[in-house]
Amino acid sequence: MSASKEHWVLTFVCPDQKGIVHAISGAVVEIGGNITESQQYTSLDTGRFFMRLQIEANITKEAFGKQFEEIAARFNMTYVLDHVGRKMKTLVLVSKAGHTLNDLLFRQRSGLLPIEIPLVVGNHPDLASMAEFYGINFEHIKIDSGVDKAQFERHLRQVIEKENIELIVLARYMQILSPQFCSDYAGRIINIHHSFLPGFKGANPYAQAHARGVKLIGATAHFVTEDLDEGPIIEQNVTRVEHSDSKQLLVEIGQDAESKTLTQAVKWFAEHRVLLDGQRTIIFR
Amino acid sequence: MSASKEHWVLTFVCPDQKGIVHAISGAVVEIGGNITESQQYTSLDTGRFFMRLQIEANITKEAFGKQFEEIAARFNMTYVLDHVGRKMKTLVLVSKAGHTLNDLLFRQRSGLLPIEIPLVVGNHPDLASMAEFYGINFEHIKIDSGVDKAQFERHLRQVIEKENIELIVLARYMQILSPQFCSDYAGRIINIHHSFLPGFKGANPYAQAHARGVKLIGATAHFVTEDLDEGPIIEQNVTRVEHSDSKQLLVEIGQDAESKTLTQAVKWFAEHRVLLDGQRTIIFR
Amino acid sequence: MSASKEHWVLTFVCPDQKGIVHAISGAVVEIGGNITESQQYTSLDTGRFFMRLQIEANITKEAFGKQFEEIAARFNMTYVLDHVGRKMKTLVLVSKAGHTLNDLLFRQRSGLLPIEIPLVVGNHPDLASMAEFYGINFEHIKIDSGVDKAQFERHLRQVIEKENIELIVLARYMQILSPQFCSDYAGRIINIHHSFLPGFKGANPYAQAHARGVKLIGATAHFVTEDLDEGPIIEQNVTRVEHSDSKQLLVEIGQDAESKTLTQAVKWFAEHRVLLDGQRTIIFR
Amino acid sequence: MSASKEHWVLTFVCPDQKGIVHAISGAVVEIGGNITESQQYTSLDTGRFFMRLQIEANITKEAFGKQFEEIAARFNMTYVLDHVGRKMKTLVLVSKAGHTLNDLLFRQRSGLLPIEIPLVVGNHPDLASMAEFYGINFEHIKIDSGVDKAQFERHLRQVIEKENIELIVLARYMQILSPQFCSDYAGRIINIHHSFLPGFKGANPYAQAHARGVKLIGATAHFVTEDLDEGPIIEQNVTRVEHSDSKQLLVEIGQDAESKTLTQAVKWFAEHRVLLDGQRTIIFR
Repeated sequence: MSASKEHWVLTFVCPDQKGIVHAISGAVVEIGGNITESQQYTSLDTGRFFMRLQIEANITKEAFGKQFEEIAARFNMTYVLDHVGRKMKTLVLVSKAGHTLNDLLFRQRSGLLPIEIPLVVGNHPDLASMAEFYGINFEHIKIDSGVDKAQFERHLRQVIEKENIELIVLARYMQILSPQFCSDYAGRIINIHHSFLPGFKGANPYAQAHARGVKLIGATAHFVTEDLDEGPIIEQNVTRVEHSDSKQLLVEIGQDAESKTLTQAVKWFAEHRVLLDGQRTIIFR
Repeated sequence: MSASKEHWVLTFVCPDQKGIVHAISGAVVEIGGNITESQQYTSLDTGRFFMRLQIEANITKEAFGKQFEEIAARFNMTYVLDHVGRKMKTLVLVSKAGHTLNDLLFRQRSGLLPIEIPLVVGNHPDLASMAEFYGINFEHIKIDSGVDKAQFERHLRQVIEKENIELIVLARYMQILSPQFCSDYAGRIINIHHSFLPGFKGANPYAQAHARGVKLIGATAHFVTEDLDEGPIIEQNVTRVEHSDSKQLLVEIGQDAESKTLTQAVKWFAEHRVLLDGQRTIIFR
Repeated sequence: MSASKEHWVLTFVCPDQKGIVHAISGAVVEIGGNITESQQYTSLDTGRFFMRLQIEANITKEAFGKQFEEIAARFNMTYVLDHVGRKMKTLVLVSKAGHTLNDLLFRQRSGLLPIEIPLVVGNHPDLASMAEFYGINFEHIKIDSGVDKAQFERHLRQVIEKENIELIVLARYMQILSPQFCSDYAGRIINIHHSFLPGFKGANPYAQAHARGVKLIGATAHFVTEDLDEGPIIEQNVTRVEHSDSKQLLVEIGQDAESKTLTQAVKWFAEHRVLLDGQRTIIFR
Repeated sequence: MSASKEHWVLTFVCPDQKGIVHAISGAVVEIGGNITESQQYTSLDTGRFFMRLQIEANITKEAFGKQFEEIAARFNMTYVLDHVGRKMKTLVLVSKAGHTLNDLLFRQRSGLLPIEIPLVVGNHPDLASMAEFYGINFEHIKIDSGVDKAQFERHLRQVIEKENIELIVLARYMQILSPQFCSDYAGRIINIHHSFLPGFKGANPYAQAHARGVKLIGATAHFVTEDLDEGPIIEQNVTRVEHSDSKQLLVEIGQDAESKTLTQAVKWFAEHRVLLDGQRTIIFR
């Protein structure tokens, strides 16, 4: 079967060595393709080579994969091949605050964010109507105790499997996930931290920011790991504040940075622009 | 005696209460003056009232002070009265890196920074020629031991007294001042920290920033207190960085933020725009 | 009748002269009030004095006004007295693009924007469901010809009168209002221009920005006057763009700046922080 | 002869077609090299393909060029091959204002800017001592009439030839160069415009910015063409300003943006990161 003007995105990581680009570009030539975007990075810290390509080629995914397999084996590559613009299956967890969810849903519906959200799960019911407005399923699951949390996570695991979830977004979800859950889905859970990391960690960073008299407040989107707030950083933004800004206004100003930062991180992830290099992220913008 | 169109800056702090503005503006009316700038702030944290005024009035400093004295006593004010634009006597301490000193000296000479620098003191000789180019005295004092440091600080105290130093700027001065010195000149020593505080503290924050993969790096100008890097923050700036930026480039990018941030803090201080409210600064821009 | 802890906002403009602050602060003392915020500005261009005060005082609006009237007459002031936080009656006009409307409605509902929107009017029906979700009336009025436009504006005038509209927001409303309408509601209509003014004017600035290869794109919120895109500027923001950003991505990036900029301008206006000084705005942040 | 670990930068432009990357990477493999940085861009506007590579290879420039020649001919490439970090020969023209020159000289001496400045030419003598401090030749050439200007440009042409000048920087040089001169050195003259282009053009943009009440002011570094201020833009920056900022303060704030913007543009140019695509620049950061 054939297709006209199919666009592919290919990302891979491998030990750095000579000849990688030549081998890859050779495979592209052989399938009659054209490289339309290309970014690479060699990590001096880990000796690994990272690359992201967009390729125009009339070929099936199977045929492309076959062509690429031998090279991947030769260079010991970990790779991902996907259609450009395919919507990534995303599960969103929320609590009460709706600003980040609103931004995600509005942009997803506007076609600006290549994700598909089969379900939003909240440990409070507050955001049900917002999800409903955007035609997205909402589940309210109360969490009161450790037992509930275990049950909750078992349920999430079922949803993830059933819906083929590829990305889990904590959109101001105020609960902590278990270390086992974080570890099982490492590199696939993105959280928005309402502070500039490193910096004020844990609860109520805005009160801390006020007490310390900082002149800039910020937000950090990061992968979730077992160490709270210590996962690899994907994106950060800051905004200027004044001595006269109340704690309430700091929260409000911070919410803008939170929405913008989380949406950006999700977009890059869904476009296969985020690769991991130990504790650091490589962002191919 | 008398002058035409003299401009004054008046700042004061007192317990918040009714009638302060009326009393002050009454005094201004009585001396035939005109308020050309005015900013105020009431701290809910400490219950104190802060104000900065610029006043146009043909009066001597003595006469102005006399007029103001009674009000200051009534409202229990701590106040400062100065000529707008008077150059503040500033001592600068440096080590080897010249980027912040260069920015301070260039702007001071261009008339953009109302300070007068009788002396730059370096624990290394490297920046002597830069000071010389700008026609400013430079003293090189080697510091090798605790004894030397004590001697060094005794010397600084003499310079401060002799030259009527009002502000001490640590322009990438890489030595730690003694707690006694910090305490004696509290609120008059400004340091530039090459990181976004709170955040990476202590030595080599750029290496830490690289290891952690942050997306923004910054600089913080703060008052020096006995607790290293914990003094009230005056100004902060950040700049975006990429995963591909080497540690060396982070340093270079950071230096821009450092120069800009320190110069801004010094300018605000020299214009009497920085007031202290416990651990926080009030900045009347 | 009495009230506890009523908060007032007072703005005024008058010819600059001595004694204004003293007179105002005297009136505040007489009603037993306390000035909690105060900002002033003297325009050297027009010789006018601008002031914004927030005052805590247990008094009715009538009594406050009476107290203030004599001073206003003496200094030839134009003034506005209002309750802090009162929601300003706002009419929003839209076409098809929903990003700025979404931001206004979300924030208004979250309590972050002190406006009340009795009606959204669209010359296209596309945004009806968004208004509905936020519980706000939506009217679709098709505009096809000059006659329709005249009819449309007559209808707007009726709505404005009936609902006591104080502010008209053009939230990416793609029609031009008549000079008479602009003139009648001068200083009360805010538009968001999808470009950094001065700069690319008129239609499709993003295509122009792409063609010219600019490195920053921006948005400008301004008052609407008879001269298209020439009204006083209230707020502006820019964002960095790359040579590789397509026209489509420029639009998307620009939309963020548009939403943020328009919402900010509306917020300042609703809080009586925007005063006019000829072609310039005074923003008391 | 041979060298160890030589680093090369290669940029080229050619009509877009299949197989370019494969051909280039093949040449790199054949010389035993390694691609350490790579960026590419296909212009949909002009159908041209742009690439910048950094290559590690122990080879002479002649041998590299020979290897590359056949490919360049086959794909109809215009290319530049250079050593990474080689200092580009740069002529700087100035008038009276020294802030951009100071930034260029300080960074160049600090090793942060890969340029070598054989000569600074000023139509005023003011900046002679600054050049001298940095150990750089300064020539003062008064320009009073059209005849002088013609003479002046003839002299510049001699300097350019004698010193093998590759880049001409107008660091707040307040004279207009002749169309013939601009045309002869097209793509090699960089100017700093003290405004955000498009926007206020011509003289005194800060006064225009003040009159119009803009909220952001900026600076634009661009190539000089025969049309004043219309050449391809290389870099832009803006800074926020307040209604209370005087024209003088706007100038001061703007100077920061000017220095930062010009230095950045010069750095990118000297690192072969700026390519021309019609009226637009491709910046491979």
